[in-house]
Amino acid sequence: MDLKKRVDIAAGREPADLLLRNGRIVNVLSCEVHEGDVAIAGDRIIGIGSYRAHRVIDLGGMYVCPGFIDGHVHVESSMLTVPEFARLVVTHGTTAVIADPHEIANVMGAEGIRFMLASSKYCPIYVFMMISPSVPASGFESSGAELSALDIAPLLSDKWVLGLAEVMDYMGVIAGNDECLAKLGTADGRPIDGHAPGLRGRELCAYIAAGIHSDHECTSLEEAREKLRLGMHIMIREGSQARDLDALLPLVRPETLDRFMFVTDDKDVEDLLQEGHIDHIIRRAVAAGMNPVHAIKLATINPARYFRLHDLGAVAPGRLACLTILDDLEKCHVRQVYHAGRLVAQDGVPIDPDAPHRKPLVLRSSINVHWLEPEQFAVRVSGEGDCLVHVIEARDGHVETGRTVERVPIVGGQLHADPKRDLCKVAVIERHQASGKMGLGFVRGFGLSGGALASSVGHDSHNLVVAGTNDLDMFTAAVQVVKQRGGFCVVRDGHVLYRLPLPIAGLMCELDAKTLYAELQALHRAAAALDVRLRRPFMALSFLTLSVIGALKLTDQGLVDVENYRLIDLVAARPTD
Amino acid sequence: MDLKKRVDIAAGREPADLLLRNGRIVNVLSCEVHEGDVAIAGDRIIGIGSYRAHRVIDLGGMYVCPGFIDGHVHVESSMLTVPEFARLVVTHGTTAVIADPHEIANVMGAEGIRFMLASSKYCPIYVFMMISPSVPASGFESSGAELSALDIAPLLSDKWVLGLAEVMDYMGVIAGNDECLAKLGTADGRPIDGHAPGLRGRELCAYIAAGIHSDHECTSLEEAREKLRLGMHIMIREGSQARDLDALLPLVRPETLDRFMFVTDDKDVEDLLQEGHIDHIIRRAVAAGMNPVHAIKLATINPARYFRLHDLGAVAPGRLACLTILDDLEKCHVRQVYHAGRLVAQDGVPIDPDAPHRKPLVLRSSINVHWLEPEQFAVRVSGEGDCLVHVIEARDGHVETGRTVERVPIVGGQLHADPKRDLCKVAVIERHQASGKMGLGFVRGFGLSGGALASSVGHDSHNLVVAGTNDLDMFTAAVQVVKQRGGFCVVRDGHVLYRLPLPIAGLMCELDAKTLYAELQALHRAAAALDVRLRRPFMALSFLTLSVIGALKLTDQGLVDVENYRLIDLVAARPTD
Repeated sequence: MDLKKRVDIAAGREPADLLLRNGRIVNVLSCEVHEGDVAIAGDRIIGIGSYRAHRVIDLGGMYVCPGFIDGHVHVESSMLTVPEFARLVVTHGTTAVIADPHEIANVMGAEGIRFMLASSKYCPIYVFMMISPSVPASGFESSGAELSALDIAPLLSDKWVLGLAEVMDYMGVIAGNDECLAKLGTADGRPIDGHAPGLRGRELCAYIAAGIHSDHECTSLEEAREKLRLGMHIMIREGSQARDLDALLPLVRPETLDRFMFVTDDKDVEDLLQEGHIDHIIRRAVAAGMNPVHAIKLATINPARYFRLHDLGAVAPGRLACLTILDDLEKCHVRQVYHAGRLVAQDGVPIDPDAPHRKPLVLRSSINVHWLEPEQFAVRVSGEGDCLVHVIEARDGHVETGRTVERVPIVGGQLHADPKRDLCKVAVIERHQASGKMGLGFVRGFGLSGGALASSVGHDSHNLVVAGTNDLDMFTAAVQVVKQRGGFCVVRDGHVLYRLPLPIAGLMCELDAKTLYAELQALHRAAAALDVRLRRPFMALSFLTLSVIGALKLTDQGLVDVENYRLIDLVAARPTD
Repeated sequence: MDLKKRVDIAAGREPADLLLRNGRIVNVLSCEVHEGDVAIAGDRIIGIGSYRAHRVIDLGGMYVCPGFIDGHVHVESSMLTVPEFARLVVTHGTTAVIADPHEIANVMGAEGIRFMLASSKYCPIYVFMMISPSVPASGFESSGAELSALDIAPLLSDKWVLGLAEVMDYMGVIAGNDECLAKLGTADGRPIDGHAPGLRGRELCAYIAAGIHSDHECTSLEEAREKLRLGMHIMIREGSQARDLDALLPLVRPETLDRFMFVTDDKDVEDLLQEGHIDHIIRRAVAAGMNPVHAIKLATINPARYFRLHDLGAVAPGRLACLTILDDLEKCHVRQVYHAGRLVAQDGVPIDPDAPHRKPLVLRSSINVHWLEPEQFAVRVSGEGDCLVHVIEARDGHVETGRTVERVPIVGGQLHADPKRDLCKVAVIERHQASGKMGLGFVRGFGLSGGALASSVGHDSHNLVVAGTNDLDMFTAAVQVVKQRGGFCVVRDGHVLYRLPLPIAGLMCELDAKTLYAELQALHRAAAALDVRLRRPFMALSFLTLSVIGALKLTDQGLVDVENYRLIDLVAARPTD
């Protein structure tokens, strides 16, 4: 619609397309709720007030909010394709997400990012992208791709790309690493998101001075306060693993509202279905005592302003008609959702008017593993007696891991898992270049009584991760994941108990949310048969390899002492020591 | 300084250039005051905390604010050149202004805007420009230039130009006038400032839907509330004439802080010297009960964000080191000012390190008047008896005028001024094209007992404006202004009592602020000798011709009924009626 037509309708000379009458507007600009009729023409809100329209919907006093915006999300973590993710979150009132295709970028590089951009067309929400500058996340893992500054620069010219996604290699930035700084330079004034868990003081100043102006990794009030003071927009994260709302909410005062927003970062399909998306964070914030209009401000105009999406985030003339209709403000209960002027969800059901325009997209298979043998899973040590071994401690609901040292006897020249002490073996197998690289270690926390779990989701390089109590089951599980072009499986006594293929980059599948949820339930039941103790064993498995956060991690290159930024030997002390 | 060097210093590997130690930071991001040492390298703040530096200044507990920003100012209204304006306001803590060169644009067009841009180089503050889309302000006056969309577009590519300045022709926008909308199109996503006095309802929606997102013309709480709700950033104006702070302050709540900023719009040199600049607005807001940190937020990060000046507005790493040091927060008393890392004012004295770089700029003379004769100032009417005549009512301290109808006797075929009833004659003479166009009318409020005042400042076309009690003095005053290439003069009985030349576009002079102030004092004393009743008679004179605001105005084309948007006859009813 041209500007002249828009002005003609706004001025009342021509009728609007749609009038939402008798609504109570949740005004995130004036921070109040007031009555008003919302007139829409084409994809825009054109006025609030008395308007004629071709179609009138009486809202009967329901609340008209700006559509919710997720300021930072890895869509891949839902294991859904972008359209299926959109169909799910739109029923929860989300009308825009700022996606960081970091996971697929680690597997497929620019090809993966372009696939995500292409997948985002004709969705019932807006999907903006930030380009991941930290691929691979660290030098301690072998990813499927490396993105240099020269690879990143052309991606930034896409109109749906807003800037650079979380800069995970904060040590590289602080050290003034040339390639890190060159990547930052590609943003050329666009927003750059941060990822700086625990960073404080001069190091934090250096990171911010380099041009990085947000952070979603604050877990304590004091950390968030320092980042807020130093100029970062604080993204309050409530995802599946990381849940920081309770810790950070006390920092959000009315006068600092504009410096905060809500994000999910990583949220799996079970939690999206059971809890919701940004609506869930609003509900939780309100339940914790926050004014609902303030909470909705953090979910709408704040990310819109931070990401310079000046046409989004408010119920106001000229803005895109992305609206979420609630019948209960405190409970944030979504009845209808409009996207660019069209109804896209009603009572939890997506409407998805552009679905026929979406074409199936083809992506090459991403699983490329050097031929495996069961013997490769053995941890061989020379000598006799007991070894002191570094052990990763998996923690349910946390990306971070702990670390400990355990005494393990050398039996037949090998170190074995010990289910009685909850000591599993874990292997990370390079799966992009068929290089044969493989890291072996021990993990505590899974509680496996036998068998093995395998996954092609393994942050951030997404190599194969296998945890198990014996080599044969670990081998069987790894091979099964290769055969099914990625995904998860549960193996016991050489038999595949359950398998869930994720053929898109080994991260996602074409299933709809409910079907995927049912598959995951079945998968978890199979895992439960191994006496798995964790609520989300495959998520925990996937974070065992994330080499930028936590105390101790395992990659295809070996054990990573994250805090000291170095590879270490599995064996802390040998019998001869 | 390259990014690597900046990061090296921020990380503490190299010493900073300057450390401001023992300050109390006025943090407009976290909305609090906290202790901290501010480290500066080159033109940037690089860190807050413990740093080594080549030079250390102990602030002894003084307050470190971000430099103040005036979000909307016509520098020409100070009658100072940009550098002299900068030297004045920097002593009041202002380190950036967003200037709208609307006045000079009306006289000299793009040449005038380019002159202002060139004048802004090497100043002790940042001078950003918005391009005036409303030249002339209306079709009822003959300006020195017209700026079409094609003229505006190339100006927007200058790196110091941020967007489009106040769109004064709001009726044109609402009517969907093609040229008006084409001008808006040149902004191409950049900010567009509004000017919509009293606009409400659907017309306001249409104006905002056209892409205009600020307004500095709110005079009542209800008007501002509606504009706030509909998406406008509210610029709270405290200038010389318009003072809206008291009316609007109750609308500013902690949770809506981010939607407001402070501007001066038009402030003359007397008020700038006596009251100050943005510091004065902060003082007044705090005196009215506002939290000082909140007030400073409106003067710093808020305009920075609205104008997308992401490197300004806060004391935080990576931002430009534009800092205002206060020794009293409540009184907003400025001790030192730093601009881009350098001291530029100390205890009210500008330091202006780049003054030697400024080159004198030449602009052609702007006064081009058709030869004048005293007889042209006569108001001739046929018939006999009394006429009912439209009279403009000048109001001290207001841009608006009132209107009334007065009975004036026809004497010798003419209508004469009547000092006893405070009825002056007023003439507006076209002074750009020597077209000979001239409007004649009557004004009340000046209180002249005799003589005449003349001015080449006459908003917005800046034609010659002459008010007087008799034709000969009006003629003499007009000719004097022509001879001096613009400015003001006071005439009585054929003698020039005082003259103040403004040779730059008939609007500005090369004098420094204090000298200009002394000149204006002398001018006002001369005017007082004519028994002038208004506090600022030349400012009132200059607004008599502004044909977009107020009830009744006079231009070179005649009397303008502003509310009904038309030209009207001077004579409301004739003897024969």
